Amino acid sequence: MTIDHVAIVVKDLEATVRLYTEILGFKEVYREVVDDQGVEAVGLKAGDSIVELLLPLQNDSPLVKYRGDAETKLHHTAYRVDDIAGTLATLKARGVRLIDERPRKGAHGNLIAFLHPKSTAGVLIELCQPIDR
Amino acid sequence: MTIDHVAIVVKDLEATVRLYTEILGFKEVYREVVDDQGVEAVGLKAGDSIVELLLPLQNDSPLVKYRGDAETKLHHTAYRVDDIAGTLATLKARGVRLIDERPRKGAHGNLIAFLHPKSTAGVLIELCQPIDR
Repeated sequence: MTIDHVAIVVKDLEATVRLYTEILGFKEVYREVVDDQGVEAVGLKAGDSIVELLLPLQNDSPLVKYRGDAETKLHHTAYRVDDIAGTLATLKARGVRLIDERPRKGAHGNLIAFLHPKSTAGVLIELCQPIDR
Repeated sequence: MTIDHVAIVVKDLEATVRLYTEILGFKEVYREVVDDQGVEAVGLKAGDSIVELLLPLQNDSPLVKYRGDAETKLHHTAYRVDDIAGTLATLKARGVRLIDERPRKGAHGNLIAFLHPKSTAGVLIELCQPIDR
């Protein structure tokens, strides 16, 4: 498992993109709306990994509540695997509770699935498998 | 800038190490006390990056307050650079406030420096340069 991306929920997407690109020196490599998750996602290249900025598109999104008063807040870490369905089956067999029993389409050409934070000591973990990059 | 590590502050280090190694499948690659930061750090290999579990060694550590009631909580992201002193100088010239004006010794043979979260929209960012791995 390698780090595919670190996701940060943001209040002001354009201001945060400017911070990460113009000040910190990252390069924007994708931008897309992920309807399934109700977010606009911007991917910033960080070596073989991505820093993904997430703007919730609905005010009642759980992401807005999670962010609270912060301008931006670390939200989850996503690990890249070769066989997401197989990994989910293995983890389930080890007693891990899954949010997604089956992989679904995420940003950046990934199949994704979230593990339940009850099974990961509170930190939200996503698995992803690139299928269409 | 590539992701060197994602740091997670933990309440119970051994339980969290077991979760990440025995259940999630990561491999422990280093364990050390970083006096300067008042933590015991365990590094778990995640491809070319590391998931670093941080156990504060003092109850009055700001990390304990940050963690709050959570068992574990995402704390910061560290980006690997080739020339940390040069990168700090560049960022400072761009107006970024630094916690560490000069690099200091971190875990895993790294020179490290933290940027001030006031300049990074609230998310704590560390820079690091491997010098002794």
